[in-house]
Amino acid sequence: MGSLENERKTTGWAARDPSGILSPYTYSLRNTGPEDVFIKVICCGICHTDIHQAKNDLGMSNYPMVPGHEVVGEVVEVGSDVTKFTAGDIVGVGYVVGCCKNCSPCNTDREQYCAKKIWTYNDVYTDGKPTQGGFSGSMVVDQKFVVKIPDGLAPEQAAPLLCAGVTVYSPLNHFGLKESGLRGAILGLGGVGHMGVKMAKAMGHHVTALDHLGADEYLVSSDTEAMQKAAESLDYIIDTVPAFHPLEPYLSLPRIDGKLILTGVINTPLQFLTPTVMLGRKSIAGTLVGSMKEQEEMLAFCKEKNLTSMIEVVKMDYINTAIERLEKNDVRYRFVVDVAGSKIDDQ
Amino acid sequence: MGSLENERKTTGWAARDPSGILSPYTYSLRNTGPEDVFIKVICCGICHTDIHQAKNDLGMSNYPMVPGHEVVGEVVEVGSDVTKFTAGDIVGVGYVVGCCKNCSPCNTDREQYCAKKIWTYNDVYTDGKPTQGGFSGSMVVDQKFVVKIPDGLAPEQAAPLLCAGVTVYSPLNHFGLKESGLRGAILGLGGVGHMGVKMAKAMGHHVTALDHLGADEYLVSSDTEAMQKAAESLDYIIDTVPAFHPLEPYLSLPRIDGKLILTGVINTPLQFLTPTVMLGRKSIAGTLVGSMKEQEEMLAFCKEKNLTSMIEVVKMDYINTAIERLEKNDVRYRFVVDVAGSKIDDQ
Repeated sequence: MGSLENERKTTGWAARDPSGILSPYTYSLRNTGPEDVFIKVICCGICHTDIHQAKNDLGMSNYPMVPGHEVVGEVVEVGSDVTKFTAGDIVGVGYVVGCCKNCSPCNTDREQYCAKKIWTYNDVYTDGKPTQGGFSGSMVVDQKFVVKIPDGLAPEQAAPLLCAGVTVYSPLNHFGLKESGLRGAILGLGGVGHMGVKMAKAMGHHVTALDHLGADEYLVSSDTEAMQKAAESLDYIIDTVPAFHPLEPYLSLPRIDGKLILTGVINTPLQFLTPTVMLGRKSIAGTLVGSMKEQEEMLAFCKEKNLTSMIEVVKMDYINTAIERLEKNDVRYRFVVDVAGSKIDDQ
Repeated sequence: MGSLENERKTTGWAARDPSGILSPYTYSLRNTGPEDVFIKVICCGICHTDIHQAKNDLGMSNYPMVPGHEVVGEVVEVGSDVTKFTAGDIVGVGYVVGCCKNCSPCNTDREQYCAKKIWTYNDVYTDGKPTQGGFSGSMVVDQKFVVKIPDGLAPEQAAPLLCAGVTVYSPLNHFGLKESGLRGAILGLGGVGHMGVKMAKAMGHHVTALDHLGADEYLVSSDTEAMQKAAESLDYIIDTVPAFHPLEPYLSLPRIDGKLILTGVINTPLQFLTPTVMLGRKSIAGTLVGSMKEQEEMLAFCKEKNLTSMIEVVKMDYINTAIERLEKNDVRYRFVVDVAGSKIDDQ
């Protein structure tokens, strides 16, 4: 907790109210503590959840709020107990920046489910101050929640992996769905879905999608005949749609013991009939981003497989337009804000 | 396929229309084929699904229909290829009497999920004739779907195990929830639920129930404080309620990676909000009775643990009243019809 004189300031783009419109906002950062990494942001992806939060769709937003949780930056300074990182390293920060480090989930590499986890923004840090995200010049982050970006992975390519990428990698990993030869489907080809298709393909799966993206098959739920043909054929579906949609057409697709895995925050209840899960011992599961261990594994996997995301890079002052376009699914498939190139701390 | 002259007849109590009212109905049984076991019915439990079927709640009932799928009987005659059973054996028959014996589920002891499985009643057998259930004097059943009742287990005690018992044993077995020390809850204390409490207790679990039955705790979902205290504490919930109910209060109870397992056929969609499963990587799973391997294991387990069901034994001519009472949950906890004592084949 530094004195006011040497307090560091940064500028981010913040939502001020449920309109969700972002504008420059200058705030202070804590000094680099023993476990902290001080990061100059290079770029940051825009995720649908950023819109939910900025617009208070979930009814728990606090303003001013600087969103952004797919952050890639350069290490400027590290705390005295930080051994994993040094100045100049290219690192990433995802959706979580704190946890209790002492509970069952924390002790079993499931810290994203810790009851005391701290979200990257729209949360309160251990020092009592609001957390602010990656649409900002700089961040100070506990080393536990910082991940090294492998050499050769471009920052703007790495950014969408830190939420969208790990959001699909984690359930495939956790539910034992990484082996090659499986049959999967991805619902919703936004930022998360398009990473899902690419990740599953890279694992050697036969992938069915609801849009074209190099998947093996393309299926529209209104095509009754094709849906019937596909019934009971899939090991899993990753459902990335962040808005209300019927589950019935999709619950017929997994084979016995297959899974429908939900990754989208939806504030309207989804519905299903119990026989649709009972008759094939199917599961409807939810999953939330991934653990730091999974972040590391996933980045190494993407590097190894030379897996790239499909992105549109924009400057910071385009973000409100980008959000509008994202709401209309008018992006193939992820916006990444070139934060460093926008020189927002110089404004 | 015997000739008409030596065709065997039996009398069952059949529903004739969606009123679901049962009355005596005489029909022919196939001759005992090489793989068949000819069984004189001793008793048969009444399950909520029998009502759904008799009243066409699921829109796929064919009449006349003799329900009953918790059947205990005595072997009268066995086919030439039957080696597991001999005349005089006390045996059980559950919800399924046929499967293809050649698909992935059939080859992996999951034949209850075979796409060509044949229900014990309200289905069509391989000979083209309707299947008829256990509220009848006799049945002819493929030996694969006949299970030996362990010595010392009374027929009326064994009957509810053949559907209600295996319906809770199977998910505990399949989802790796048999080890002692787990914390579980049972929703809905009907025939299935009461077996769930007893089965889980016998496995050494800490069991929370929504009614008193020797469970460790008793929790009412309208008791907000108690529900909050119980939040994130359970390894599983087995939800046996066969009618619409909200899932939200219960989805808060499982711990991370915990499961809500549905066993009740409900013809109104259930609802849930995606964050309720996402925030703890929870699963909503369905399960359907159990495999024949699980039937055998479960009966041996109940014998070993001296586990008894709580039943009310009635005669056949009481069945319509019993159904009315079951619909009002006015039974603690399972009706079992004393079929042999009702001498219906002599009427």
